[in-house]
Amino acid sequence: MKIPGRTVERLSKYRRLLLKYQHFRQAHIFSHDMARAFNLTPAQVRRDFMLIGIKGNHRKGYEVQKLIGKIGEAIDNNTTQHIALVGIGNLGKAVTTYLSVLDSKLKIVAAFDIDNQKIGKVLAGVSCYGIDELSVVAKEKQISIAVLTVPPDFAQDVANLLVSSGIKGILNFTSVHIVVPSNVYLKDYDIITSLEEIAYYTKSL
Amino acid sequence: MKIPGRTVERLSKYRRLLLKYQHFRQAHIFSHDMARAFNLTPAQVRRDFMLIGIKGNHRKGYEVQKLIGKIGEAIDNNTTQHIALVGIGNLGKAVTTYLSVLDSKLKIVAAFDIDNQKIGKVLAGVSCYGIDELSVVAKEKQISIAVLTVPPDFAQDVANLLVSSGIKGILNFTSVHIVVPSNVYLKDYDIITSLEEIAYYTKSL
Repeated sequence: MKIPGRTVERLSKYRRLLLKYQHFRQAHIFSHDMARAFNLTPAQVRRDFMLIGIKGNHRKGYEVQKLIGKIGEAIDNNTTQHIALVGIGNLGKAVTTYLSVLDSKLKIVAAFDIDNQKIGKVLAGVSCYGIDELSVVAKEKQISIAVLTVPPDFAQDVANLLVSSGIKGILNFTSVHIVVPSNVYLKDYDIITSLEEIAYYTKSL
Repeated sequence: MKIPGRTVERLSKYRRLLLKYQHFRQAHIFSHDMARAFNLTPAQVRRDFMLIGIKGNHRKGYEVQKLIGKIGEAIDNNTTQHIALVGIGNLGKAVTTYLSVLDSKLKIVAAFDIDNQKIGKVLAGVSCYGIDELSVVAKEKQISIAVLTVPPDFAQDVANLLVSSGIKGILNFTSVHIVVPSNVYLKDYDIITSLEEIAYYTKSL
């Protein structure tokens, strides 16, 4: 069964809250507490959990450990996936540093750039390769996902290279619209869009 | 009339495409061309335009200049808003550099940090102030929006300071859940959530 994108997003957020919550040694959590943390309705939270086959208990709520396990089974199958970072400037370094300290099923295993000053070095804890080595290194290190942080003008060319190197998922930070085949999962993050949305609501507050 | 968040997001994206499209000297664009660029249905695009009072022409499509103007009126009132960047590490620098070169109604006018090596300097084109000056500088420079790129442990404390300094919108990059009063518009961006969503779909591709 295919879970919708928005639900996967929410399940991922629930899990990160639950992983923190478990340190407080609470065995159970109520849907309305989860809902409040994310500005959702309790009904939405219950629907999401129902979708992955978990029912809560009216008096006690949901079992925290069971939720964490079931979300893992549903969204990441508990297998590690390897990520490449392409374009290691300020943003690339920030993302790499952030990901490398995380306890997650997602492992950043290589960075790529065209700058000879960077190639062959270890940057933010990750080995940097030339972009021309992408195809070989991607196969060798079983990389399935790429984070694209190259300058906008290079975005489409590098995306084409990623696709031909067998990358199956791309997180595009370039703010440029790129085109990929339908068998590659593309997700854009565009800071301007987020800021314009905030600006819109801020005006009327 | 209040436009829903998702619609504001899409309108912002449409406009950025249209601003590029106008360079090709095309006076009109069809809803299905817009739709294809964003993996939407043409009906969705038409509904969004209808919401801000624009109807297309069956034979010619929509007037590009009119769309750009109307989207501006609807989502940003064509007024400039001032942004502060709080926590100018790698990610903060990347965001600042990116925003400062953009031709946008959003202007980044100050950065804040606790590092004495940074305070008083110009970083990525923007003056850096001490976090203790936030309240004064925010008023002086009429800052309404803040981008939060501090380490996770400081997120809530800095958010409280932003709120008490009169900031009305926050883009939270810290990956930590923060709480703000209901008269402040908060938007989170969490790279892990995006990557877990990609990982989920990539598995089955």
